[in-house]
Amino acid sequence: MPVSTEDKVKAVETYINSFSKPDVEAIVGLYAEDATIEDPVGTPLKEGIDAVREFYTGAVGNGAQLELTGTPRCAGDSVAFPFKAKINMNGTASHIEIIDTFRFNDDGKVIEMKAYWGPENLKAG
Amino acid sequence: MPVSTEDKVKAVETYINSFSKPDVEAIVGLYAEDATIEDPVGTPLKEGIDAVREFYTGAVGNGAQLELTGTPRCAGDSVAFPFKAKINMNGTASHIEIIDTFRFNDDGKVIEMKAYWGPENLKAG
Repeated sequence: MPVSTEDKVKAVETYINSFSKPDVEAIVGLYAEDATIEDPVGTPLKEGIDAVREFYTGAVGNGAQLELTGTPRCAGDSVAFPFKAKINMNGTASHIEIIDTFRFNDDGKVIEMKAYWGPENLKAG
Repeated sequence: MPVSTEDKVKAVETYINSFSKPDVEAIVGLYAEDATIEDPVGTPLKEGIDAVREFYTGAVGNGAQLELTGTPRCAGDSVAFPFKAKINMNGTASHIEIIDTFRFNDDGKVIEMKAYWGPENLKAG
């Protein structure tokens, strides 16, 4: 059964909150065994749940706090959502503006994640 | 040669402004001959430049005004950008919150567009 809009939005909220805690296993729990991550788009895929876990174990290491900056947009088997990752760079508050897309399988797990961001999306404040 | 970040952002701005005017040919000019559009994600593809032109000729018909609601996020050969489409529904001001992604070919033309939005993204105001 295709995943509902409500469940897609819930997955996005779990993702944002679990990254910020951080709770790597709660993030990994959103993903399918054969999921792929392309973060940022244009870089080599991380393939499979072990690569997913390794990626997030590293990614939460800098203590980034994620915050949605707009409503999730659900369409078909997917959702896109805008957020910022607030980080501390050498004692200076900064943030990166990012858009992620999740594609879900019929079990409601994320099968494909893509992250859109570049150096120009790193801002002070 | 891969399209530059500057050119990707310029394409997004041309898209937003040309839709609002409206200037269908300026929008069509952003697209490759063999481009595909999936709007919203999960619906059948519009394939090829004639289908692109037909799609936008219809889409601008309701007089929607587009406005970026965040910075474009460039990554690899792609860009994602959040915006709203302001429309008048039976005399009531409304808007739809949308995220589009463009993927570019090496000629700097959009080869693939995907639009993420659903009924829950239609808001008053």
